[in-house]
Amino acid sequence: MRVGVLTGGGDCPGLNAVIRAVVRKGVATHGFEFVGYRDGWKGPLEGDTMQLGIQECRGILPRGGTILGSSRTNPFKIDGGVERIKDNLASNGVDALIAIGGEDTLGVATKLADLGVHVVGVPKTIDNDLSGTDFTFGFDTAVNIATEAIDRLHTTAESHHRVLVVEVMGRHAGWIALHAGIAGGASAVLIPEQPFDIEALCEHVETRFKTKYAPIIVVSEGAVPQESDGEHGMTMVSGEKDAFGHVRLGGIGDRLASEIEHRTGKEARAVVLGHVQRGGTPTAFDRWLATRFGLQAVDAVADGDWGTMMALRGTKIIRVPLAEGTAELKLVSPEEYAEAQVFFG
Amino acid sequence: MRVGVLTGGGDCPGLNAVIRAVVRKGVATHGFEFVGYRDGWKGPLEGDTMQLGIQECRGILPRGGTILGSSRTNPFKIDGGVERIKDNLASNGVDALIAIGGEDTLGVATKLADLGVHVVGVPKTIDNDLSGTDFTFGFDTAVNIATEAIDRLHTTAESHHRVLVVEVMGRHAGWIALHAGIAGGASAVLIPEQPFDIEALCEHVETRFKTKYAPIIVVSEGAVPQESDGEHGMTMVSGEKDAFGHVRLGGIGDRLASEIEHRTGKEARAVVLGHVQRGGTPTAFDRWLATRFGLQAVDAVADGDWGTMMALRGTKIIRVPLAEGTAELKLVSPEEYAEAQVFFG
Amino acid sequence: MRVGVLTGGGDCPGLNAVIRAVVRKGVATHGFEFVGYRDGWKGPLEGDTMQLGIQECRGILPRGGTILGSSRTNPFKIDGGVERIKDNLASNGVDALIAIGGEDTLGVATKLADLGVHVVGVPKTIDNDLSGTDFTFGFDTAVNIATEAIDRLHTTAESHHRVLVVEVMGRHAGWIALHAGIAGGASAVLIPEQPFDIEALCEHVETRFKTKYAPIIVVSEGAVPQESDGEHGMTMVSGEKDAFGHVRLGGIGDRLASEIEHRTGKEARAVVLGHVQRGGTPTAFDRWLATRFGLQAVDAVADGDWGTMMALRGTKIIRVPLAEGTAELKLVSPEEYAEAQVFFG
Amino acid sequence: MRVGVLTGGGDCPGLNAVIRAVVRKGVATHGFEFVGYRDGWKGPLEGDTMQLGIQECRGILPRGGTILGSSRTNPFKIDGGVERIKDNLASNGVDALIAIGGEDTLGVATKLADLGVHVVGVPKTIDNDLSGTDFTFGFDTAVNIATEAIDRLHTTAESHHRVLVVEVMGRHAGWIALHAGIAGGASAVLIPEQPFDIEALCEHVETRFKTKYAPIIVVSEGAVPQESDGEHGMTMVSGEKDAFGHVRLGGIGDRLASEIEHRTGKEARAVVLGHVQRGGTPTAFDRWLATRFGLQAVDAVADGDWGTMMALRGTKIIRVPLAEGTAELKLVSPEEYAEAQVFFG
Repeated sequence: MRVGVLTGGGDCPGLNAVIRAVVRKGVATHGFEFVGYRDGWKGPLEGDTMQLGIQECRGILPRGGTILGSSRTNPFKIDGGVERIKDNLASNGVDALIAIGGEDTLGVATKLADLGVHVVGVPKTIDNDLSGTDFTFGFDTAVNIATEAIDRLHTTAESHHRVLVVEVMGRHAGWIALHAGIAGGASAVLIPEQPFDIEALCEHVETRFKTKYAPIIVVSEGAVPQESDGEHGMTMVSGEKDAFGHVRLGGIGDRLASEIEHRTGKEARAVVLGHVQRGGTPTAFDRWLATRFGLQAVDAVADGDWGTMMALRGTKIIRVPLAEGTAELKLVSPEEYAEAQVFFG
Repeated sequence: MRVGVLTGGGDCPGLNAVIRAVVRKGVATHGFEFVGYRDGWKGPLEGDTMQLGIQECRGILPRGGTILGSSRTNPFKIDGGVERIKDNLASNGVDALIAIGGEDTLGVATKLADLGVHVVGVPKTIDNDLSGTDFTFGFDTAVNIATEAIDRLHTTAESHHRVLVVEVMGRHAGWIALHAGIAGGASAVLIPEQPFDIEALCEHVETRFKTKYAPIIVVSEGAVPQESDGEHGMTMVSGEKDAFGHVRLGGIGDRLASEIEHRTGKEARAVVLGHVQRGGTPTAFDRWLATRFGLQAVDAVADGDWGTMMALRGTKIIRVPLAEGTAELKLVSPEEYAEAQVFFG
Repeated sequence: MRVGVLTGGGDCPGLNAVIRAVVRKGVATHGFEFVGYRDGWKGPLEGDTMQLGIQECRGILPRGGTILGSSRTNPFKIDGGVERIKDNLASNGVDALIAIGGEDTLGVATKLADLGVHVVGVPKTIDNDLSGTDFTFGFDTAVNIATEAIDRLHTTAESHHRVLVVEVMGRHAGWIALHAGIAGGASAVLIPEQPFDIEALCEHVETRFKTKYAPIIVVSEGAVPQESDGEHGMTMVSGEKDAFGHVRLGGIGDRLASEIEHRTGKEARAVVLGHVQRGGTPTAFDRWLATRFGLQAVDAVADGDWGTMMALRGTKIIRVPLAEGTAELKLVSPEEYAEAQVFFG
Repeated sequence: MRVGVLTGGGDCPGLNAVIRAVVRKGVATHGFEFVGYRDGWKGPLEGDTMQLGIQECRGILPRGGTILGSSRTNPFKIDGGVERIKDNLASNGVDALIAIGGEDTLGVATKLADLGVHVVGVPKTIDNDLSGTDFTFGFDTAVNIATEAIDRLHTTAESHHRVLVVEVMGRHAGWIALHAGIAGGASAVLIPEQPFDIEALCEHVETRFKTKYAPIIVVSEGAVPQESDGEHGMTMVSGEKDAFGHVRLGGIGDRLASEIEHRTGKEARAVVLGHVQRGGTPTAFDRWLATRFGLQAVDAVADGDWGTMMALRGTKIIRVPLAEGTAELKLVSPEEYAEAQVFFG
């Protein structure tokens, strides 16, 4: 059998580990041949392929990024896109596809599976917000990077009696903020699922200073303040233009630091971790999880188990229907947020 | 309520995170007071206590080891040991105990619970070999340390065309070797659960050299060769005496490197990771797991849920009976060992 | 003798290592007693002291920040400040001071030495811009943090075909950018000493993409564009107000990414490393240098060698006059900048 | 001009950074072509070449080991070896050689230069024991790895009241032990240059336990005890045979731990860091130093400055005669050893 492999969406430590596992086991156990499609769905859409064998997978296990490249191309938003994909698969002699990606990439996979394309999915989101799997690879790496940054910032906060705001990834779900905040010993964790009360937060900051320990506040990029009246509220600004006429989207981290400084009179600084959270070598956990997803995905292809997605449940890798696995975002529940509130009071 | 806390057995990254979570939540939510017992069961046996409050727990989250000290003292092996513990708990005004430890420490806890002592357990084993929980804290740290070492050794193996044998922890269970071997891209993984065939291993080594890549072999400290005849077998030596008359236990790593060199004529070197795997700062995963175990344990005390042990199942922390949680060692199954064999062929 | 110790200015990995070395050798070899002054020159100004002995220095070697706290207080800018310092030293029975700090802190020390105060200085600047010493501690840590970040960003740049701009510390001197840029394999390094040509930079970016490798640009926070006409120039904006009426100083990193995106049409993202560069555990080099500075400083006190500053020359620690050591900023020379230009063409 | 490049001796983080700098600057500035010789002097001896251009140097800066391979082959110990090298250089059209290596590799280079071969040397020793240069690359990486290990071991030592012996590299010179011992806060540092007194060491261990802090002893692999009578002396054993009939050289670390346990009755464990010190990604300092050595070496070739070796003096890279640079081993002087003795009393 000839199997195509593609990676879509934002990059994520562990993508190469999946690719390597797919190819190593596919060749050795199932006798498959592989075709690499470049840059996500753009690859099969444009017939843009690269060689993908044991040799191409040498040494990639510990490397971040993806040797296949990535994009956010969606063939369903392009006229005749789906037909072009089918044609290209046929002309490349590709019998089955393994699509590695997040909500969008797997959403396309789900629809293609419904249309009869032989496709199997591997979930990828650094935000860990896919339902159907306990964890996704990349998340553990991001949490470790954020935790190490918080570790480093503690000494600055204490030596300078400053408030430090650490902005981490997480547009819709606060998993990275919650895990890194617990692991790093943060004073407060603000997540998208629970709009925060800027006044209560500032009171908390002032209390912390009275007990002599400078606070560190971890905030998801998607966290928002509660709606409230003009006196107490923090207005979420967006769309300012800078001097070049470009739109400047001030991040929540910078705005929060500014607001805390303004309200409490304490020096506050923001650190926006940004892309360092998603690049570079994966942790052992992420390599192990990504490798096992890859091994299972290529077995699913061998089994003709189309339309499934790999998932971690406890310590087992199982297969769930793609449609189910991507049906809804996995958010931090009020109970999960409350569990560690004793540290963030 | 006055609650005693102790840590027993080998040290393990995350012990301090458990202690901190127990104390922070115990004081803030339940209004408990705490007594620290020094050096495992030796503490309550000898009435050796230390102050344990919010202040003592400042800054300990990222630190390895245990502020309470540890030992392998077993009160059931000491005449009148159990009575002395009961007397000391009474005279210290301690109503309940939280025991953090492995098979031995929790074995004592199980028996004391049967005798009516109010005790709750938190599982701790760097080897990850306790049944009843998906993972134990410390394990992820050890696997990451071992994986980083393997990453570093790849370049030496390749530059010098040498076989490198990496000995990792794991007396009875091969979890560290298996996870680090997968994550580090090892050529072979030898675990206690599956006696290895030294001849097949050496053939594998020679095949690897023909394809130009120097092999890295990860071996658990408890791995053993298959029994076989004198010609092919590797005799497990122990009990040599050195020039001081001390018994010298040659480790499996050193002996394996020596044997491979002897049989294949290829230079082979062993690296024995030893104690660096269990010391130092915990990973984010281990801090998160240890913290959640601590939070749940102190709630179990508040609930009077004596004789239970905390456990991770998927992403939830649950309570299981101590007796059940420690009933049998969790070993690597043949299926789990076989899952990644495609990399180790 | 009774010796006061203080740390001033921004925090810097290695401060605690200096303090520990001063105290350990001062007590053991010279029989000194020590007084800790809190928060830089604010301490002796307000007579704010803390106990400082062997016990206070336990375990601080690997820890970032400073156990003495820090501030930017300048007694020469306060009416009667110098007199108050002299009075407090006298009433605290302090015969000599060891001042650890950068340009400002040591500038005060220099003037006080001229006024007869017994003071010895230890240079500290994470920017490595003090003349008179080959390196200052903290710099190596900052360069390593920045280099690790660049390592991580390479994979994102390549997987997404994006320009990544990394803003590092360095207001006046480009040492961190230059060293991290060389060590991280950056495509361009922009430093304060050499105003950059935005047009040439954008051409370089476009050339890079043609050879298929996404560029990483390292920029010092103090780097500025060349003055030029409106059509080609990049206007350095500052002083915008945000919606709270606070002044928003857009950093050079963000503005550069925005400008590159605008001019080249390539996606560009900025990562501003900020405070993570100056917090946390020091590298081995910084601990070694800081320890040796501390050992030498307390010997200088024993020798009555007032008004001197410790300095590294090659592998030796020497003493130079404070006035000389802080006379001018050590900047990156055109030759030093040119040395590695082959990588940044 | 056509330039050959080779790397000899033990591997060392930074070798690839030298190669990359040589090639990048050689091609871009001087218009050179390059030939890679495989496995040290074995390459030109056997005419074993590989392609070496910009493309081969992509992505190698952060990677340990050497893409050229290495060996300890000495052409002067092989009949007609020198003639074969000259013949091969001629038939490969190679006008000049850049040899990167330690004492042995550069010793060959020195002799070849005397015989008229156009050769330039780059010093490489992880032990930092080459005179003529302040530091060699690889050393800083090894010291950081050893320091991180010591950091990790502190918590185990304290939690278990154990003596921990850490054996680091350094056959003839104690630089790694000295720097890592200072940076890691060791209790004692034993180096080859100063035979140690086992009795005094054990007394020191017992004193440490009385003050409640478990000692960590850092020992160079080449450290030896003082000669003394049978009662107090520690006999250096070597040449035991194990059950396979292989000679077993017990390392100093294991023997020291055994001896300390025997004499003091305290549990003692050895950790032998071994090859992890020399593999893997280089620190920023080592990448910077290696890169600058490479840039300077290719300029020396362009200048026809044959028979020179690159050296670091302060912050400058200079050229010294090969003969001088390798004339004697740079050992730790009694003054340098004494400087930090206050920590090791």
